[in-house]
Amino acid sequence: MKAETVEQKTDVHLLMRKIGERARDAYRVLSVASDTQKNEALIESSNAIRRNVSEILKANESDMIAARKSGLSDALIDRLKLDENRVEAMGKGLETVAAFPDPVGKIMAQWERPNGLQIERVSVPLGVIGIIYESRPNVTADAGGLCLKSGNAAVLRGGSDGFHSSRAIVECLHTGLKAADLPTEIVQIVPTRDRAAVGEMLNMHGLIDIIIPRGGKSLTERILRESRIPTIQHLDGNCHTYIHSSADAQMAEKVLLNAKLRRTGICGATESLLIDEAVSDKLLPDLIKNLLAAGCEIRGDALAQKIDSRVIPADEEDWATEYLDAVLSIKTVKNFDEAIRHINFYGSHHTDAIIAEDSAAVEAFLSEVDSAIVLHNASTQFADGGEFGMGVEIGISTGRLHARGPVGAEQLTTYKYVVRGKGQTRP
Amino acid sequence: MKAETVEQKTDVHLLMRKIGERARDAYRVLSVASDTQKNEALIESSNAIRRNVSEILKANESDMIAARKSGLSDALIDRLKLDENRVEAMGKGLETVAAFPDPVGKIMAQWERPNGLQIERVSVPLGVIGIIYESRPNVTADAGGLCLKSGNAAVLRGGSDGFHSSRAIVECLHTGLKAADLPTEIVQIVPTRDRAAVGEMLNMHGLIDIIIPRGGKSLTERILRESRIPTIQHLDGNCHTYIHSSADAQMAEKVLLNAKLRRTGICGATESLLIDEAVSDKLLPDLIKNLLAAGCEIRGDALAQKIDSRVIPADEEDWATEYLDAVLSIKTVKNFDEAIRHINFYGSHHTDAIIAEDSAAVEAFLSEVDSAIVLHNASTQFADGGEFGMGVEIGISTGRLHARGPVGAEQLTTYKYVVRGKGQTRP
Repeated sequence: MKAETVEQKTDVHLLMRKIGERARDAYRVLSVASDTQKNEALIESSNAIRRNVSEILKANESDMIAARKSGLSDALIDRLKLDENRVEAMGKGLETVAAFPDPVGKIMAQWERPNGLQIERVSVPLGVIGIIYESRPNVTADAGGLCLKSGNAAVLRGGSDGFHSSRAIVECLHTGLKAADLPTEIVQIVPTRDRAAVGEMLNMHGLIDIIIPRGGKSLTERILRESRIPTIQHLDGNCHTYIHSSADAQMAEKVLLNAKLRRTGICGATESLLIDEAVSDKLLPDLIKNLLAAGCEIRGDALAQKIDSRVIPADEEDWATEYLDAVLSIKTVKNFDEAIRHINFYGSHHTDAIIAEDSAAVEAFLSEVDSAIVLHNASTQFADGGEFGMGVEIGISTGRLHARGPVGAEQLTTYKYVVRGKGQTRP
Repeated sequence: MKAETVEQKTDVHLLMRKIGERARDAYRVLSVASDTQKNEALIESSNAIRRNVSEILKANESDMIAARKSGLSDALIDRLKLDENRVEAMGKGLETVAAFPDPVGKIMAQWERPNGLQIERVSVPLGVIGIIYESRPNVTADAGGLCLKSGNAAVLRGGSDGFHSSRAIVECLHTGLKAADLPTEIVQIVPTRDRAAVGEMLNMHGLIDIIIPRGGKSLTERILRESRIPTIQHLDGNCHTYIHSSADAQMAEKVLLNAKLRRTGICGATESLLIDEAVSDKLLPDLIKNLLAAGCEIRGDALAQKIDSRVIPADEEDWATEYLDAVLSIKTVKNFDEAIRHINFYGSHHTDAIIAEDSAAVEAFLSEVDSAIVLHNASTQFADGGEFGMGVEIGISTGRLHARGPVGAEQLTTYKYVVRGKGQTRP
């Protein structure tokens, strides 16, 4: 038994090394491919997905049967499930990515030095990107397409419940790559459900350049803990909507209800409402009534409880919690400064909004709240690459290095300095 | 004894937490400070350094005495040593940084969505930066100044051999901060030589946002291994100069000698010469003769050995070695492709140069060599923030995320998205 485990481990190790080496070779080819060639691969992949709807749905159905048997939760089953609309959305997504300008080879800056050296900063791909995600088949198409467009080779490790679906989608991407005369190893899927493969990926220094986790908190935290490879982090979205005393009451209500309840399971959903004490008496009674009527549980501080007895007492932990559910915490604040301090302290620096008409308060909020996305008079649910006009996204970065906010093709590039001389030596 | 160790550990732990908390508070103030205020602090710091030359040199002398007693190597003593010129260079560096445009608050991109949302991508500071470096007192001034300009609070942990020198320099920075009415906690130096402080810094998640190591390979590798905080890496510089068959012979010799020998201990020094076989017979005899005459040891492949019997046989390890010394490895290559493959495989993706007149070969090299800096007809020793016109630098990044190449004030920023609406909700 022990020997078998060791052997299995070795097998996975060798398998993953092989995948990594193939990815590196494929990256070398892709990194200098033309935009035309990359776009052809994307369009042909999109066509293949549309041609193969029934094969993809069949593969998904076998995943769904197994998932139901194993007792997967409804929320996860919903993420796993594909239908014709969702498959069409994947095809459309690849088309959108193809239509964007090439993020590689852009001259971001150029200057000349007094000694005549010509310096350019030029965008280049990141390299080989390992993407570790839950059983959401659409991530396979989105991530594969974004990596391809940005010149990166992708090693995809999706949740094992979506194994067959992802495989069917990757086959379509391979059809597209072949049509464009590009190596299929540009997009590889890890062909085993063995969880040891994830551990291997996190230690493939020299083969994988960047790890991107896309999934729940426990996945991303494991990766941050174990990875020896730099990651683009996507941690939690403890998002706030702050209703300032100068807010338009109707707008405040409309935006807050959308921010909280449009979809409660996404990272841009508002989890905490802050409201100036000065307008609590006027605005909170209706707000709370409407939220409760819509099925939202409310946990609030003393003042919120006083306003409506159905408000459950909130404790310290509530301020720091991303519910991802129809639950809202309410904190009344004495003034603007208390709101800012609360958000910067308890928030996760993801997305926060102010509803206000006072432009001085608005500008101070947008400047002082230290989050990837700060909004004025708009729903936090706009925190999304598609809504930002970036086509599909690979996640929303809450890290501070490299990319912040939605991660699209442009965010999957880095740069190099190209220096042209005439024989200059350094004195 | 054991109890004492535990107590010491606790002391250092508490001390470092305190420093981290102060840094966060100071960062909040600095992140919204005006450029004028930051520049005043820089200029006044520069003035204080110039006023206090003798105090700084006295502090440095006491470091030097201790270092000599403890048997520090000549190379390290040279890095530790300050004189009037080096102190003046620190003052000048701070002035240069002040003269640059504010890297914070720049609108990097802006667009409007069909629903009327106005989106801006705006540069913001990284946060609290922990800098861990060797006993090079000038890093204290450079890193402190760059962090201040870019709106970041700095926690500086310099090598213990330079303890007094760094402290004297930080006092000058504090004078500048006070003069500009900014908190002195913007630049803090770790006030203990206890090495446990480094371990603490690497785990101060939530207090320190980014770790920047600046030092030798063992320091940076330890940090990559242990840090739970994202780092801007500075690994080794195994730099190549490739003499293409189309190279101008005189230029090739002049540039190579400079690239290898101007200063052998810096990361931009060439460690390996690649040369096309077609021109080896013509160029190598003189090149080798002159390198040897200049005191450079040469390790080469069979062909290089045949050309000059004083060439020592090179082995596989030589191709991957950063000598940081007067040693050069020479590899003759059959053609351009072999050169590119060799550089991308054995190099460290830091800085590589081609000497050539054939423009097709030049463009292919600049595009295909996957390094932070690629040069044409110029010395690899130009790999330096100052030479790039960025004023002082905090190091040269060999990582692929965030910053690549010289890290100046602009590279110490990230961005946020500012979204302005009129009550939009997401459908």
